[in-house]
Amino acid sequence: MKKATISPMLIALDQAKIAFDSEEVPVGAVIIESQTGKIISKAHNKVEQLKDPTAHAEILAIRSAAYQIANARLTDVELFVTLEPCAMCAHAISLARIKKLVFGAYDSKNGGVEHGARVFSNPACNHVPEIIGGVYETAASGILRKFFQQRRKNIQV
Amino acid sequence: MKKATISPMLIALDQAKIAFDSEEVPVGAVIIESQTGKIISKAHNKVEQLKDPTAHAEILAIRSAAYQIANARLTDVELFVTLEPCAMCAHAISLARIKKLVFGAYDSKNGGVEHGARVFSNPACNHVPEIIGGVYETAASGILRKFFQQRRKNIQV
Repeated sequence: MKKATISPMLIALDQAKIAFDSEEVPVGAVIIESQTGKIISKAHNKVEQLKDPTAHAEILAIRSAAYQIANARLTDVELFVTLEPCAMCAHAISLARIKKLVFGAYDSKNGGVEHGARVFSNPACNHVPEIIGGVYETAASGILRKFFQQRRKNIQV
Repeated sequence: MKKATISPMLIALDQAKIAFDSEEVPVGAVIIESQTGKIISKAHNKVEQLKDPTAHAEILAIRSAAYQIANARLTDVELFVTLEPCAMCAHAISLARIKKLVFGAYDSKNGGVEHGARVFSNPACNHVPEIIGGVYETAASGILRKFFQQRRKNIQV
């Protein structure tokens, strides 16, 4: 039975705040067990810290969860992420066989789920999770807006 | 000046052979400096060994190269990989700002460059490398065919 707990998206938003404070693009992700709601992994964007272009929150959360479960296929988990995944992360979600994807803000520029390459809409996509977008959208997009506003201000100074 | 050396694809094929011997899907990748031809990183698929669904040869080679250069953007490098990248790897190549992508075998099932999500063909894709496909195609597809034939045989036994 799934426990009545705080929404995993709020924990993902906390991860986004940690990214913000580290001067990383503020995106956070959490992976939970579908059945129990137990958190398996949480991560935030670390592209700058790790000097790794693949270190998006989703990829780090997936790698950590797969390592803990000792299985490259995460068949019974749900991924919560504050921003619509890009094409890299969307296809990683498919490769990992994640059951359900819940995301916060829509990303019309770099998103790969509802925008751009629309990875899951392609008939060649082997595994398509259940998808829910726009969850805690205002908070998720708000922290991103604040980050890019500050960055523009710093560039102008 | 680029040195006259062995084609990086032959080194990528050697990496694919290492993957084959480790019972991983045999795909290998090499990243070189555009100007000098110097090898920065080489990697092979390690999905099973690392229990990491993102551990494709391209992702591992990109992560290693970015770490060594200490920059998440690999602006002056070329990536050689024995198989057409999937959508995850294609978008990672775009995020890493890789200048040139050379691949071996075409992948009509799981490819994301000339097939499926066609990541680089999408107008929303921020960075598109120069792309050459079909280099050492026979060798690259041959080792994959051998791997999957053996696997089917093992399943039947």
